[in-house]
Amino acid sequence: MSHTAFELSTHGQGLYEFTDTVARWVAGEGPLEAALTLIVQHTSASLLIQENADPEVQVDLKAYFVRLVPPTTDPCMSYLTHTYEGPDDMPAHIKSAMLPTTLTIPVISGRMALGTWQGLYLFEHRDRPHRRRVVAVLR
Amino acid sequence: MSHTAFELSTHGQGLYEFTDTVARWVAGEGPLEAALTLIVQHTSASLLIQENADPEVQVDLKAYFVRLVPPTTDPCMSYLTHTYEGPDDMPAHIKSAMLPTTLTIPVISGRMALGTWQGLYLFEHRDRPHRRRVVAVLR
Amino acid sequence: MSHTAFELSTHGQGLYEFTDTVARWVAGEGPLEAALTLIVQHTSASLLIQENADPEVQVDLKAYFVRLVPPTTDPCMSYLTHTYEGPDDMPAHIKSAMLPTTLTIPVISGRMALGTWQGLYLFEHRDRPHRRRVVAVLR
Repeated sequence: MSHTAFELSTHGQGLYEFTDTVARWVAGEGPLEAALTLIVQHTSASLLIQENADPEVQVDLKAYFVRLVPPTTDPCMSYLTHTYEGPDDMPAHIKSAMLPTTLTIPVISGRMALGTWQGLYLFEHRDRPHRRRVVAVLR
Repeated sequence: MSHTAFELSTHGQGLYEFTDTVARWVAGEGPLEAALTLIVQHTSASLLIQENADPEVQVDLKAYFVRLVPPTTDPCMSYLTHTYEGPDDMPAHIKSAMLPTTLTIPVISGRMALGTWQGLYLFEHRDRPHRRRVVAVLR
Repeated sequence: MSHTAFELSTHGQGLYEFTDTVARWVAGEGPLEAALTLIVQHTSASLLIQENADPEVQVDLKAYFVRLVPPTTDPCMSYLTHTYEGPDDMPAHIKSAMLPTTLTIPVISGRMALGTWQGLYLFEHRDRPHRRRVVAVLR
């Protein structure tokens, strides 16, 4: 069993890929048969396994979720009460409920068992720049 | 490897925090490096990692998901067929598909690696009181 | 620790149960106390733990998510850009972000700790037939 933490810088809503960073750490631990668990230690960002072939997919994912969960300045969201941290804050909590906070990925012979087109992403839900912390355990 | 089960009483839709109950059990197992897996053994309740600082967030989460998945008595849900268990039943299944049934959390030195503002919640999707069972394994 | 892969054939959107296939493999590994991790190696299908009592629930789940994330031929989805792989492709990626790609399930005495009414499903989001690969590790 080993563990580490990754620090990721974000600059606005959207998907930030970090597949290679994680893959390198996993490979460095040896040719393990294991399970990798990741947790993002925030309630306004998510972890996603998503297509990494066409960047349009990432643009569209961001666009869809902004429409599904609009800023609290949008009249249709006027029933929300937790608005004092900015119009993107409560929508960020809603998206972080709806999208994964933790992921567990099988590791076979020291490699994550991801499909050909699958990458690992941090999905940032806030507008301003943030430092995000992802804790990982391999066992 | 050890396992246990937590029984939680709910009285209507909303979030019920049980971070401390889980943290005490984990700590009692010793200063482990491990992964904790939880499963809620029902298809009308979910598990969430969410902000535990401001209770408004929990009120707003409930309010958002009630609007996203209205009761089957709402005209916009008239296409649904599984309605004989009450107007909150099929929406509960939909929410339980959309929100986590299982969570895996890294454990470092006998403590869950949660962020400062993260708590562990059962999200009840039914209106009437229920007893909910959450099974946990630590390994 | 052991691992395997399951291949599932799908023929259009909807839920495909494979609880028994997984349960047989888990039981064959002995009376383990363990955690089972599954990953679907695609970004247009999901894994679900859902009610397996009444098949209406599965029909309604499919119907709800088709309305929440309509095909890109629907005018309300005209802002999406990743449309060249068919009207069901980008909605499939959105659903695969929203619904689980990985699941971890406690295993006690060689059996998955599922509730009485819980079954394990592949949720296919594409219209045409596909072969889907689910990798499993037990440890």
